[in-house]
Amino acid sequence: MHAETPGSVTSEAIWRRLDDLTKPPRSLGRLEELAARLCAIQGTLTPVASPRRLVVFAGDHGVAAAGVTAWPAAVTGLMIDNIRSGGAASSVLARSTQTELVLVNVGALAPGERGARREPLPDVSSPPPPDAPAIRYRPSVVREGTRNLAQEAAMTVGEFEQALAIGREEARLAAEEGMKVVAAGEMGIGNSTPAACLAMLLAEAPVDRAVGRGAGADEETLARKRRIVAAAVDRVRRQADDPIARIAAVAGFEIVAMAGFYLEAHRRGLTILLDGYISGTAALIAQALSPGVTAAMIASHQSAEPGHPLVLQRLGLAPFLDWELRLGEGTGALLLMPLLDAAAAMTTRMATFQDLGIRREAAP
Amino acid sequence: MHAETPGSVTSEAIWRRLDDLTKPPRSLGRLEELAARLCAIQGTLTPVASPRRLVVFAGDHGVAAAGVTAWPAAVTGLMIDNIRSGGAASSVLARSTQTELVLVNVGALAPGERGARREPLPDVSSPPPPDAPAIRYRPSVVREGTRNLAQEAAMTVGEFEQALAIGREEARLAAEEGMKVVAAGEMGIGNSTPAACLAMLLAEAPVDRAVGRGAGADEETLARKRRIVAAAVDRVRRQADDPIARIAAVAGFEIVAMAGFYLEAHRRGLTILLDGYISGTAALIAQALSPGVTAAMIASHQSAEPGHPLVLQRLGLAPFLDWELRLGEGTGALLLMPLLDAAAAMTTRMATFQDLGIRREAAP
Repeated sequence: MHAETPGSVTSEAIWRRLDDLTKPPRSLGRLEELAARLCAIQGTLTPVASPRRLVVFAGDHGVAAAGVTAWPAAVTGLMIDNIRSGGAASSVLARSTQTELVLVNVGALAPGERGARREPLPDVSSPPPPDAPAIRYRPSVVREGTRNLAQEAAMTVGEFEQALAIGREEARLAAEEGMKVVAAGEMGIGNSTPAACLAMLLAEAPVDRAVGRGAGADEETLARKRRIVAAAVDRVRRQADDPIARIAAVAGFEIVAMAGFYLEAHRRGLTILLDGYISGTAALIAQALSPGVTAAMIASHQSAEPGHPLVLQRLGLAPFLDWELRLGEGTGALLLMPLLDAAAAMTTRMATFQDLGIRREAAP
Repeated sequence: MHAETPGSVTSEAIWRRLDDLTKPPRSLGRLEELAARLCAIQGTLTPVASPRRLVVFAGDHGVAAAGVTAWPAAVTGLMIDNIRSGGAASSVLARSTQTELVLVNVGALAPGERGARREPLPDVSSPPPPDAPAIRYRPSVVREGTRNLAQEAAMTVGEFEQALAIGREEARLAAEEGMKVVAAGEMGIGNSTPAACLAMLLAEAPVDRAVGRGAGADEETLARKRRIVAAAVDRVRRQADDPIARIAAVAGFEIVAMAGFYLEAHRRGLTILLDGYISGTAALIAQALSPGVTAAMIASHQSAEPGHPLVLQRLGLAPFLDWELRLGEGTGALLLMPLLDAAAAMTTRMATFQDLGIRREAAP
């Protein structure tokens, strides 16, 4: 099949439209920039912000065993259950922002290996309203966790291709099920370590910027994480010439799946909302494979991770929120969703100066 | 009647609750700060963000004739019609953010004086959906425009009290009609000039910070605006000792009505979302009359006006969005509404570590 090509609309036409609306020109500041971006991506002066879907990809990381994270790997599995049962941040914020949620296990440790509780989760205190969209779960596991990137390649090139295909398939489903705006999120204890490696490899971030505290590393863990990341990146630079082999050696299954998701979403003309640092490094992989993919992207926010601004700079994207988020699961993208609604509504529903009988030239 | 006193909840209890939710502590950054503020204002660990209402107060300004603004005063009247018919930024964003909208004409020039077109407005291209809440309009005019503050007191103390009472009445209606969260917005060509005077009088802003471009003043207009504001503030400081007389001499009817609205909303236990610079100076008036009123306030955003940070500092509030907005009409407050929904949902609907069978002490 052929890619759906969105119509084309010039930046000049977009701003003429926005400046015609009954407000002082540019007086809605960054909301207007968001609207302009939405128009440009969708190739129209009547953009939409829904239907929309967040796909959260979950995976585990062999490097978690090397002490790079404050959380035990078992938490990935617990959080898969928590997202499914509606109690996680992503589940709650998806409902609050009228966004469908699909959870894909692309590489988490099997429940039997978690060493954690098995009983079904208790109901959370406030059950979802009866009309809340169901949270769909798809197990599509490449392998139960990556290998430890501190010692060997995290995944083979074959596994990389498999994870990429899983992500692509999710974007295909989203497009065929009518979605117009999509985001990808992630859950994977330890995944800010592969993300840091990717930021070094693909955005030339220095190790001190690339490695942050993730979900709460202390000083000792941070120092260990820096050593491991620097050594791994150095190793793959020496061992592999092929860019894909380098990426595969330090990536995570959920990160590669997000990259595949972005590539296919772009190919099908969907609007893509990025989340935080991990999501940004997945976008770097997509960009490495297909530079034009960033044209479909909106950076929802700049996170608390010190490497994120460098990643966004490499992607050529300016973030809209600066709320010191560092959770993942697509939560930052979800927070921007209602502001995307506002941007689309402003563009399509406001009256113009002509409607009011004011000649545009008379307005300042 | 007695004020409804919200329950009390300590900051410690609020943060214990937020840190118990299934996420790394504080990993939702400013969303958690917003949630904590909402809990503190409402005195509960189960805060709400709706039902909610924006009341836009409209008024004209004698000083507009002195050349402080790029727009003719007739635009205030045109914009009243535009808000009512659903085509203005506030009408569109209120609908997009599920917020009721009430428009109160507290001092705009009568239609007959506008010298503008009289035919009914054409329908905007995208009519509101049938279930959209109606936009209610209440004419409650103190006087058709203030006097020119460059030459004389903008209003008498009696008129000040009248405008204040109109604002109070709107907050009473909002509370009695079940609102939990309220915002006030304004429409009034020229009103960044009285706002600048108020920022100088009540927040000790220097004239260069207090006076900004408003809705689009050019260099010449800006210089004139600075001279007029500095002279007016100097005059009222010399002529009046009474703080109310000073405020009345440089204020606007819509600004004073907003102050009354804030005072009564606080007294009735409502949560107040501030808008931009004009709204902030109305909050300064409310604070001057009743210092405790700021305890009910959330600063939705920091605008493009250079004096706004000083006003927020005086109010003791930290803004949540920094989107270079400079439109008014309550649009900044509206943009924060869905993020208030997200903050409330996070607090009340997420699972806790106990729900997942993880002991809190084991989590980082």
